[in-house]
Amino acid sequence: MNPLEHLERRLGYSFNDQGLLTRALTHRSQGAKNYERLEFLGDALLGVVIAETLYKKFETANEGQLSRLRSSIVRKETLARVARALNLGEHLLLGPGELKSGGFNRDSILSDVLEAIIGGIYLEVGHDVAAARIADWFATELASLSLSQTQKDPKTRLQEYLQARALAPPEYKVINVEGKSHDQIFTVQCCGSELPPDLIGEGASRKIAEQNAATAALKILQLD
Amino acid sequence: MNPLEHLERRLGYSFNDQGLLTRALTHRSQGAKNYERLEFLGDALLGVVIAETLYKKFETANEGQLSRLRSSIVRKETLARVARALNLGEHLLLGPGELKSGGFNRDSILSDVLEAIIGGIYLEVGHDVAAARIADWFATELASLSLSQTQKDPKTRLQEYLQARALAPPEYKVINVEGKSHDQIFTVQCCGSELPPDLIGEGASRKIAEQNAATAALKILQLD
Repeated sequence: MNPLEHLERRLGYSFNDQGLLTRALTHRSQGAKNYERLEFLGDALLGVVIAETLYKKFETANEGQLSRLRSSIVRKETLARVARALNLGEHLLLGPGELKSGGFNRDSILSDVLEAIIGGIYLEVGHDVAAARIADWFATELASLSLSQTQKDPKTRLQEYLQARALAPPEYKVINVEGKSHDQIFTVQCCGSELPPDLIGEGASRKIAEQNAATAALKILQLD
Repeated sequence: MNPLEHLERRLGYSFNDQGLLTRALTHRSQGAKNYERLEFLGDALLGVVIAETLYKKFETANEGQLSRLRSSIVRKETLARVARALNLGEHLLLGPGELKSGGFNRDSILSDVLEAIIGGIYLEVGHDVAAARIADWFATELASLSLSQTQKDPKTRLQEYLQARALAPPEYKVINVEGKSHDQIFTVQCCGSELPPDLIGEGASRKIAEQNAATAALKILQLD
């Protein structure tokens, strides 16, 4: 079995046109016949396949939540993780400069090549087969998604809740700082005219302590 | 024939589930069961169908050019034009506020509804039928595309050309302004050490005159 056959076995798809697979693996540093056009196509197909999966999986999610969930899947870091699980790095065709600087393990190149391979499959056999491959490769990533991760941060949610009721935004006051300079604990109080007085958050930075104080407020308001 | 049947005839597609079409036509001002989730799906499908069409039509285009061509199709104004040609405005389901403020003719709502209908067809019968409808509805817009429109503006192209040859960027000098304050003609000269001296552009603003002077330079350099 030649190396590309090994790759195809892992992908779960054999290209009719091996030239298409080779092109999908070729970085622009290696030549003009590179993966960039295929990547354009694959990026778009991945977008709609993930959109459909999320649409069906999260029936109560609104458009903004679906959009945030999709972003968490189609971002470079997630694609590179999937590409590494498929061992794509072993098969990249890179120019000497990229080879020397470790391009075979760079997130941006790995994610581009994954998209280019998706584009190649779509071009050869259409949407349905490509969608099935995507569902297979991204199964773990998709299974780990939950609607709760689409929520905005606690301070934003608290502010929006108060705003919607025409109440003033809360104030955050640092009421205590303990410890040495690189190991401090901040204690912050979240204050508002309609809020109880004892909403406290702690954290290693003022910012974290404020978010924790806002979380305490959301709990009291039964929004968390 | 009821109004929705008229619409379906224009769309070239009859929904199995009329509720899906109704939902695709319903703005959020009219209720919680609105088009927003379908729009999320349709937007993504439109993206890949246009991507594939352009990939096949423009074999020499690079990724950046394909991306710029797609943007010119999937932008709000183009989608609204297609939506108007399909008379979508007549069938929108809007809340009282949107109705009063002319929402049935607003570009953003028309383009959203077009995407939602695409999403509904994709959901009912899949990629291929939806792609065929898109090809039909967008035929005129797609036929009018040309690779030349993907070019960057003349000043940028001139600067990049000179930069690639390690030459200094050109200078643009206003050499004449004629006419009254709201009806002026600017004349600008494009100057550079490797450029001939008589590269002149005119225009109703300094900016336009500069672009025209850069165009004159590109012509002399046989880049236009």
